Amino acid sequence: MNHNDAIRLFAKTLGNLERWMDKATAHAKARSFDVDVLAQSRLAPDQYPFVRQVQSACDQAKYAAAYLGGKQAPSHPDTEQTFAELRQRIEKCLGFLESVRPEDLAGGPDRKVAPPWLGGRWLRGDDYLVHLALPNFFFHATMAYAILRHNGVELGKMDYIGSLPTQEG
Amino acid sequence: MNHNDAIRLFAKTLGNLERWMDKATAHAKARSFDVDVLAQSRLAPDQYPFVRQVQSACDQAKYAAAYLGGKQAPSHPDTEQTFAELRQRIEKCLGFLESVRPEDLAGGPDRKVAPPWLGGRWLRGDDYLVHLALPNFFFHATMAYAILRHNGVELGKMDYIGSLPTQEG
Repeated sequence: MNHNDAIRLFAKTLGNLERWMDKATAHAKARSFDVDVLAQSRLAPDQYPFVRQVQSACDQAKYAAAYLGGKQAPSHPDTEQTFAELRQRIEKCLGFLESVRPEDLAGGPDRKVAPPWLGGRWLRGDDYLVHLALPNFFFHATMAYAILRHNGVELGKMDYIGSLPTQEG
Repeated sequence: MNHNDAIRLFAKTLGNLERWMDKATAHAKARSFDVDVLAQSRLAPDQYPFVRQVQSACDQAKYAAAYLGGKQAPSHPDTEQTFAELRQRIEKCLGFLESVRPEDLAGGPDRKVAPPWLGGRWLRGDDYLVHLALPNFFFHATMAYAILRHNGVELGKMDYIGSLPTQEG
């Protein structure tokens, strides 16, 4: 698995997330409640609500693409409150991911990744991808899914996985 | 990221999961309830309980190691009901992951992976890792975490991530 594959996986999963939001919207409509109630739902009182899980998934993907691709991450302030705004946030993130090309990411494994919160320490690009970006991205994507699922939205595993490049013969 | 790194990431995360279970056990003791109540907890009535999330995370790791390492997966029947039994299941899984060596996994990217449920179709090893094994493994690990978190166990993001190979200077 190269770093470009990882970034495309994040992009694919954010696309899947948009479809979970479609199902949530249909569910809210069928039950006659405002879908944006779900934007503020959470699984525990001291855990991020749905809106923040989506913002965090976007940020994990964005920073991974930036750090591993040697690019400056664009600023995306966490101002979203509604499903409509979250969709725009996802689209902005996907646009940035698309702008980071396979050739930018070819140098990813050996880049020195030093997020400010590491306080001066750093990780090799490969270690950053394996130990932080992948687990963190799927943590927030799965939490977003779990919040919708907990609130009755009919999601199944294939909604989570999305399309598969299977081959025949 | 090579396939061996992915299998070691799964092993590391299953080790983290054992520590979430330690915290759950301490939480249950402090509140004077049987920790095995949590083994049957779930986030939605038609979703897997904790016990099945842990079994599934183990299986995702086990089958990834087997398919990508060109090995036969050992049979681990889903008979566990208690935290003590789940710990044994995790240890059996970790033992198998350990037995699949970097040299076995070196051929992973190009192996033909044909799980029975694909009905005769198959995936390249690299596609299997990216599109199925990684998202599925973290799905079940995060759901296990989410079930404990939802039930009041004090877990934070660093419990989820575990140790980091940071470097200095």
